[in-house]
Amino acid sequence: MSETLSGFPEWLPEQELVQQRVIALVKANFELHGFTPLHTRALEPVSELLDQGETDKEIYGVHRLAAAADEKTKESKLGLHYDLTVPFARYVGEHRHELRFPFRRYQVQPAWRGERPQLGRYREFIQADADVITDGPLDVRFDVEMVRLLRETLDKLPVPRVRLMVNNRKVLEGFYRGLGIEEIAPTLRTLDKLAKIGPGAVKEQLVAQGRTPEQADKCLALAGIEMRSGADAEKVRALGVTHPLLDEGLAELSRVLDEVAAVGSPGSVVGALHIARGLDYYTGTVVEGVFEEHPNLGAVCSGGRYDNLAGDGKRPLPGIGVSIGITRLLAYCFHLGLLKQERKTPVHVVVAVHSEEDRARSEAAARRLRARGIPTLVSDSSAAYGKQIKAASALGVPYMFFPSAGEKPDEMRDLRSGAQAQVDLETWIGEGTELVIR
Amino acid sequence: MSETLSGFPEWLPEQELVQQRVIALVKANFELHGFTPLHTRALEPVSELLDQGETDKEIYGVHRLAAAADEKTKESKLGLHYDLTVPFARYVGEHRHELRFPFRRYQVQPAWRGERPQLGRYREFIQADADVITDGPLDVRFDVEMVRLLRETLDKLPVPRVRLMVNNRKVLEGFYRGLGIEEIAPTLRTLDKLAKIGPGAVKEQLVAQGRTPEQADKCLALAGIEMRSGADAEKVRALGVTHPLLDEGLAELSRVLDEVAAVGSPGSVVGALHIARGLDYYTGTVVEGVFEEHPNLGAVCSGGRYDNLAGDGKRPLPGIGVSIGITRLLAYCFHLGLLKQERKTPVHVVVAVHSEEDRARSEAAARRLRARGIPTLVSDSSAAYGKQIKAASALGVPYMFFPSAGEKPDEMRDLRSGAQAQVDLETWIGEGTELVIR
Repeated sequence: MSETLSGFPEWLPEQELVQQRVIALVKANFELHGFTPLHTRALEPVSELLDQGETDKEIYGVHRLAAAADEKTKESKLGLHYDLTVPFARYVGEHRHELRFPFRRYQVQPAWRGERPQLGRYREFIQADADVITDGPLDVRFDVEMVRLLRETLDKLPVPRVRLMVNNRKVLEGFYRGLGIEEIAPTLRTLDKLAKIGPGAVKEQLVAQGRTPEQADKCLALAGIEMRSGADAEKVRALGVTHPLLDEGLAELSRVLDEVAAVGSPGSVVGALHIARGLDYYTGTVVEGVFEEHPNLGAVCSGGRYDNLAGDGKRPLPGIGVSIGITRLLAYCFHLGLLKQERKTPVHVVVAVHSEEDRARSEAAARRLRARGIPTLVSDSSAAYGKQIKAASALGVPYMFFPSAGEKPDEMRDLRSGAQAQVDLETWIGEGTELVIR
Repeated sequence: MSETLSGFPEWLPEQELVQQRVIALVKANFELHGFTPLHTRALEPVSELLDQGETDKEIYGVHRLAAAADEKTKESKLGLHYDLTVPFARYVGEHRHELRFPFRRYQVQPAWRGERPQLGRYREFIQADADVITDGPLDVRFDVEMVRLLRETLDKLPVPRVRLMVNNRKVLEGFYRGLGIEEIAPTLRTLDKLAKIGPGAVKEQLVAQGRTPEQADKCLALAGIEMRSGADAEKVRALGVTHPLLDEGLAELSRVLDEVAAVGSPGSVVGALHIARGLDYYTGTVVEGVFEEHPNLGAVCSGGRYDNLAGDGKRPLPGIGVSIGITRLLAYCFHLGLLKQERKTPVHVVVAVHSEEDRARSEAAARRLRARGIPTLVSDSSAAYGKQIKAASALGVPYMFFPSAGEKPDEMRDLRSGAQAQVDLETWIGEGTELVIR
């Protein structure tokens, strides 16, 4: 990884091959579950980005450098999207008459946020999102579907095991209202800092905001609860707070936990009542995942339900989505020394070149291999074979082919073992040529 | 396609499936030829973007909306890249000690240019680039390799036949110098407008720039030449202009034409001496492709050799690359009514839901199909089967599965033919489930 521009990471070829593999696995699993690919523009009107509650300091404005002054004013209203949910919701709103609902799409694209860069937090980062949006009530079974999808997708990736934590904004809001707290958003934001600043500081801030010490303690008690299944909703009720919205939220949360557990590994998804998620637009289920062994690194995936993002006021288009932070996931793994692999190229075979006069013969052999779908490169050098072998090995290429010369037949060398044998190019099959990620 | 923001096209799901297919075919062919994937950040210092000769009016500047005034000055030096060659060359320069040369990479990403939008010219567009850069002299065989790669990649796409036109900047510069013209860049730029404004206007402009009418006529005569093979270099020599650089350029151009023809279909690549390409950084081979049947639509691919883009002055890192304009290619095809396909989802099978009580059984069937790698969706509705069939057909899904109920066995219905038969989910294989692009 390098960051010659702070916050804008770029991978080396051997790392990018891992990123491509991870993205391919994510896309394949999203398609397996019936999500269709989509690509939206990088730019959105700043007003729409701000509407969704993102603080403006994180948004990158965009304008043509040589735009006339009056044009500039107009154009300065464009900004780079900071996630893929807002553009998707805007797209669905625009195309509501051309799409069929429920509409499931996935999207793998960069997003931009002008935050202070640090490990895992970047100003440009690739996200892989899957969302379903519909044009009517969105049953809780969609929440179940999306959390399952996220769980299964993560389980298919060559990354450390992810602890998936689910909560429901209605539980939090209902609980707060049941306590007599009406200032929901600031209370949520303060509780969201729990992992970072600790319970003492959270309580202090809540009290400073006008909550009573008793209210603050109850909020902290709720945040401390972990639900292994729907039955653990009792732990919340034991706190003695009641509110219709709390009941609704607990019912939804319990159903998600129980139904995901029914087809997943036990304990693979837990109810974690401190999870709030930063984005303002969430209204129900929220989800977040961290590496089980490295919980303090931060979330590598997230998601949630939003009721009012795509609609036009008259007819709502509620949705729920999940998002895998590809760049962050990879940055953590590379940082931890995981996801190593040796290949610096997708090439399976390098064809040796005996001499520049013989290059055409090597190119012909490469064409035969490529015709069989085998990624092949002709050696750039016609130096001694030993040097050509060394160069191909340095790129992690598994095989080198030596075209017949005079009496000598066509031979293939396994560059890993050094074994070399006569082969027929039309039938030869390589072994272990796929990327191996450790 | 829709453009709610002028110049920023977005595709409908059925079109995006085509785009994904086209990109997958391009990537597969680039990898088949030994090019490794890379992804670079979207932002570059504006100074580097301008260095490469792009006029500043086309560059989008980027800044954090809430940056402090002093920060803003610093940050306003960032802009969105307008192609993938400049970021790649910058990347190679930065990583020259970590890469092995010749270094071949491909990249599929958006780029941004603040041009006046029209059919095929967008402010945000996806490009698929392949380049090779090395740390020493770059033999003309790399020019041959890259033009071949472009030809073969285009031939694998489900798009109209592309006419690939090659030229060499040395031919143009050598010819102009042989005529006594020293103002190469303005002469190139004027000749580049030939297709747009016609020979009369070009001559007028050349004369206005200080060229003699005789010089202008010769330039136009050169631009009118088409070379079917290296032997046609005689047509250029017949114009009676001589210069060492012209000889060098003609030798390179002849070699590219002859060696590409040797492995391609005849006439698949022509020497077209009016091709100059807009970007200032090209120094040798330049290439451009248009739909044979629709030449006036504009270039759908391009490329060229650049000698001074990646190096640090002390040690040059010359390169040559080709670029396929994915967005433009698709926009033209959709505009012409080509590249049609019916599917609005990658789903092969929708599992019918008998009633909401039976949904879990349908979900279990979907899991079995997915375990076999078959993209499957469970019907969102438990309405009458006829309605479920209609909804799946509207998405272009080829099959619907009906889980066994009571006495009835598992059945699969081909939604295209209406044929329905008993099946075993563990062994069933669908037919014609892949995307068919007409």
